[in-house]
Amino acid sequence: MKKDDISNLERIRHSASHVLAQAVLTLYPDTKLGIGPAIDDGFYYDFEFSSPLEEEDLKKIEKEMKKIRKRNLPFNQIFMSREEAIEYLKAIDQTYKLELLEDIEDKELSFYTTGDKDFIDLCRGPHIESTKGIGFLKLLKTAGAYWRGDEKNKMLTRIYGTTFETKDELTKHLHNLEEAKKRNHRVLGKQLKLFALIPEIGQGLPVWLPRGYKIRHILEKYMIKLEEDAGYVHILTPHIHKKILFEKSGHLKFYKDSMYPPIKIDDEEFYLKPMNCPAAMMVYNLEPKSYRELPLKMGELGTVYRYEKSGELHGLQRVRGFTQNDAHIFCTPDQLNDVLNETMDLLDQFYKDIGFDKYKFVLSLSDKEDKSEKYSGDPAKWELAENALRDVLQKRKVEFEEIPGDAAFYGPKIDILAVNVFGKEDAISTIQLDFNLPEKFDITYIDSEGKEQEPFVIHRALIGSFERFFAFLIEHHGGDFPLWLAPDQALIIPISENHTDYAHEVFDLLKTSNIRVKIDDRNKSMQSRIRDAEKMKIPYIAIVGDKEIETNTVSVRSRLNKELGLMKNQEFIDYLREEIRNKGNK
Amino acid sequence: MKKDDISNLERIRHSASHVLAQAVLTLYPDTKLGIGPAIDDGFYYDFEFSSPLEEEDLKKIEKEMKKIRKRNLPFNQIFMSREEAIEYLKAIDQTYKLELLEDIEDKELSFYTTGDKDFIDLCRGPHIESTKGIGFLKLLKTAGAYWRGDEKNKMLTRIYGTTFETKDELTKHLHNLEEAKKRNHRVLGKQLKLFALIPEIGQGLPVWLPRGYKIRHILEKYMIKLEEDAGYVHILTPHIHKKILFEKSGHLKFYKDSMYPPIKIDDEEFYLKPMNCPAAMMVYNLEPKSYRELPLKMGELGTVYRYEKSGELHGLQRVRGFTQNDAHIFCTPDQLNDVLNETMDLLDQFYKDIGFDKYKFVLSLSDKEDKSEKYSGDPAKWELAENALRDVLQKRKVEFEEIPGDAAFYGPKIDILAVNVFGKEDAISTIQLDFNLPEKFDITYIDSEGKEQEPFVIHRALIGSFERFFAFLIEHHGGDFPLWLAPDQALIIPISENHTDYAHEVFDLLKTSNIRVKIDDRNKSMQSRIRDAEKMKIPYIAIVGDKEIETNTVSVRSRLNKELGLMKNQEFIDYLREEIRNKGNK
Repeated sequence: MKKDDISNLERIRHSASHVLAQAVLTLYPDTKLGIGPAIDDGFYYDFEFSSPLEEEDLKKIEKEMKKIRKRNLPFNQIFMSREEAIEYLKAIDQTYKLELLEDIEDKELSFYTTGDKDFIDLCRGPHIESTKGIGFLKLLKTAGAYWRGDEKNKMLTRIYGTTFETKDELTKHLHNLEEAKKRNHRVLGKQLKLFALIPEIGQGLPVWLPRGYKIRHILEKYMIKLEEDAGYVHILTPHIHKKILFEKSGHLKFYKDSMYPPIKIDDEEFYLKPMNCPAAMMVYNLEPKSYRELPLKMGELGTVYRYEKSGELHGLQRVRGFTQNDAHIFCTPDQLNDVLNETMDLLDQFYKDIGFDKYKFVLSLSDKEDKSEKYSGDPAKWELAENALRDVLQKRKVEFEEIPGDAAFYGPKIDILAVNVFGKEDAISTIQLDFNLPEKFDITYIDSEGKEQEPFVIHRALIGSFERFFAFLIEHHGGDFPLWLAPDQALIIPISENHTDYAHEVFDLLKTSNIRVKIDDRNKSMQSRIRDAEKMKIPYIAIVGDKEIETNTVSVRSRLNKELGLMKNQEFIDYLREEIRNKGNK
Repeated sequence: MKKDDISNLERIRHSASHVLAQAVLTLYPDTKLGIGPAIDDGFYYDFEFSSPLEEEDLKKIEKEMKKIRKRNLPFNQIFMSREEAIEYLKAIDQTYKLELLEDIEDKELSFYTTGDKDFIDLCRGPHIESTKGIGFLKLLKTAGAYWRGDEKNKMLTRIYGTTFETKDELTKHLHNLEEAKKRNHRVLGKQLKLFALIPEIGQGLPVWLPRGYKIRHILEKYMIKLEEDAGYVHILTPHIHKKILFEKSGHLKFYKDSMYPPIKIDDEEFYLKPMNCPAAMMVYNLEPKSYRELPLKMGELGTVYRYEKSGELHGLQRVRGFTQNDAHIFCTPDQLNDVLNETMDLLDQFYKDIGFDKYKFVLSLSDKEDKSEKYSGDPAKWELAENALRDVLQKRKVEFEEIPGDAAFYGPKIDILAVNVFGKEDAISTIQLDFNLPEKFDITYIDSEGKEQEPFVIHRALIGSFERFFAFLIEHHGGDFPLWLAPDQALIIPISENHTDYAHEVFDLLKTSNIRVKIDDRNKSMQSRIRDAEKMKIPYIAIVGDKEIETNTVSVRSRLNKELGLMKNQEFIDYLREEIRNKGNK
């Protein structure tokens, strides 16, 4: 989608919000209007209704909107003087709009009329030509919203809607919304017993429950192995560091708002670490380094704590404590391109293995026009690094968006956004150059001529946050994790008590083959046990009864109700092991 | 060793400290005396010398002590009035002794003479009969020590020595001291690059370096697998919890001195967790439990932070942040004995696998005479639990020490102390009953009759602290870790450049077989590369040259310089894999 398209759609949606307000006033004339902007995937309008809105009212309002659309009323801009505007808004008793006037400094105030003054709203525009253009629309839901976002103000009723230029787009969007709802990681997290947020422990401080930790532990082992095979070494540093370290790194100067207050121990102040970098730099500096030791790739499964406003916390997606699969790579200028390319290889491997098939790259560069010296480090090195980052993306022939001016003061970066099956995007991985820390920590190596040099320092995280990543993984797969990650891979259900012994035989066979298997021999009907297993999204159910005992087989159902029929026990094991070996690749 | 033996040895050592003071005054008459007690493994005496003590002075003093021993002077107690004592000590100008008088309230002051007033020291005794009995002695070292342990006072010179009744005992002790020095985990930790203490990060907050983390990661995976195979599940909880949780658990009442001050986030107070228990209880309570789900064994690799005085911090042994392989087991009364026995099975397996061959058990029980109601929970349950703990130890026919009155207020326990090769003991594991938390958190299950019951809660840690355990592991093995734990298992050394290709072939073979292998093809002599590998205690060195290339072999040296000779490559791999499979079992 190009910038202009977005603007056009925004205009349509903004106009739709006016039509929403007009429809509401038509049906409920004594309603007071708040504001009604276009938003990311639709529009909303805030209202103060004189009596509570019912579920079915949304349908009525939507119907009324469609009537207005049909009438094809033109949108026209008119201007009033401040006095006229005040007089008008007082006359129609729109107190919230009157309040808005106080913040507008224009002498001439812009209003938009819909039709022949059927509806007039304080608004700067722009709008589309006439109501016919507001597209294929749907009102979605209501929610409470404080007037002007301030909880000291009155709570208004916000009506959300969306609209698209084509019916197909609307249908697809509504389908995606349905999917997103079904796959919501907070809902699935509870249903599948993956994680919990416990008020007495704290907001934004999730607890990994056994089935969630199982996946996390598998992933941690996988990441360490993946990196070790690529020549990484790993360290582990404490969660609190002395104040002096964050003074040295500059975090207390530039990052304090995201850090928690200090903890005083014996007259010394300690901070929960918000990043793993400072300790990693100290470890690098424990011994002098030679060019022969580079590239040095030093990883850490590091848990960091950062402040987020309580209102912004959201499930696993936005938390206050999270673990990164972090790494710092120290390399010579000659090694930069290879190191970046290898990092992208790891990323591809990782995404393939966890079943992410769609992701995009955003390259954030410095602003060449900016002469404010806000950027740390040598401009020549920036140039070299930015070219290397662009090169690696180009050579790999991946699409990427390049955003000049979006780099942090310490270096350019590539962010990797995964796109899930219903179109939701999230930043999962990052590859950043850092020109600040090497300077602050005096990071050097001795080159082949015996001279001291500053290496390039690359800060990369394939998993920027295990918590946020897990939210994405749950929603992407809708809880149907690739088999190698599934907390329980198979469940054996003996049809009756007579089949329990055989069920345990099969269980032992699978167990010995390192399959994560359980037996459900509860005194419940087979159908209800199958339903329970499906609710927990267990990938394979093996049912055993007389027939299976006779033939040394199991009756296999794969998730999504696919009957695989009778399989010899060893055949079943081989089938599972093959799928486990293939990881995310179907 | 029985109590009486200790007293006798203490008496001998105390007398030896008098002889030390006498010898010092004989050689350096204007020395001022501090105090000189017997200690755990010897004795010391504090002195203020008029000129600094040299290395060789210790030998002179020791020689003088032996002379006094030979003279077999009797020890005799005499008494002086306070006036006499002051007059006497002033006359011989012993100002520190004069100061000591102020703290003694006795009217008659006890002194001991050695021989015919050859030496007189303020002392309550008791002493042995005569100097012949001071045994086989050795002066060990000197150290600075503030007078009366107060850093505002003058620094005196402390001379340490030890003595035993037999020459064999002394020899063994000196050998153990040598071993302890060679194996000191702080020395080896640095030499083998296992961990570091970095002042800018903080005292008592160790950093795991790549070679140390390698071992830790292997151990973590091993522990989780060991426990999973025994039916455990695992959770992971954050490092900070809200204040309310520690109020509920009682930690803020009973454990506050070991906790760090709170961190204020949005007007709420959070604490670094000193224990994993409160969060584990919250997880148990997320859903109601049935007797069918018990025993529930819930583990966590949980990192906790506890206050320790800076003076008490010591390497990895005494730290401020550490990780436990923690677990809480919830079970019915009927299951208690089995659960305890299974826990001991796990412990045996674990100790065997890491090569701990000597360990002892201490059973801490309640004090039956104590009527102060200091103990939490139902006395009948205490009785049942104490009997179960004793039973499991007796049935397993292990030796154990039983200490009535040593149980915590919340329950009885078994502590497991490992004993390393030079006799040092350390508490590594613990199995504790907890009658406090179930009450505080209202922990229940529904029994087979539908009634609510309180389960037994067992708090157990096979590794009470990875950090302290690692200190012990390093010292026990002197850095020669069992092969399955060794950070590098094999090193390939090509004799010259001509052999590098072949070295890489062998390297690939080993790598594919999951051997942790490296190549050292630096431009240094073979001997010096072997020395470097030995310094890093790499278990196997495979040397390759012309002969090896011709025969598709490697020349293998195992650590401790054992030549294993030529081995076919596959033979070498099988040899390593067999040793890895056997873990700690030789």
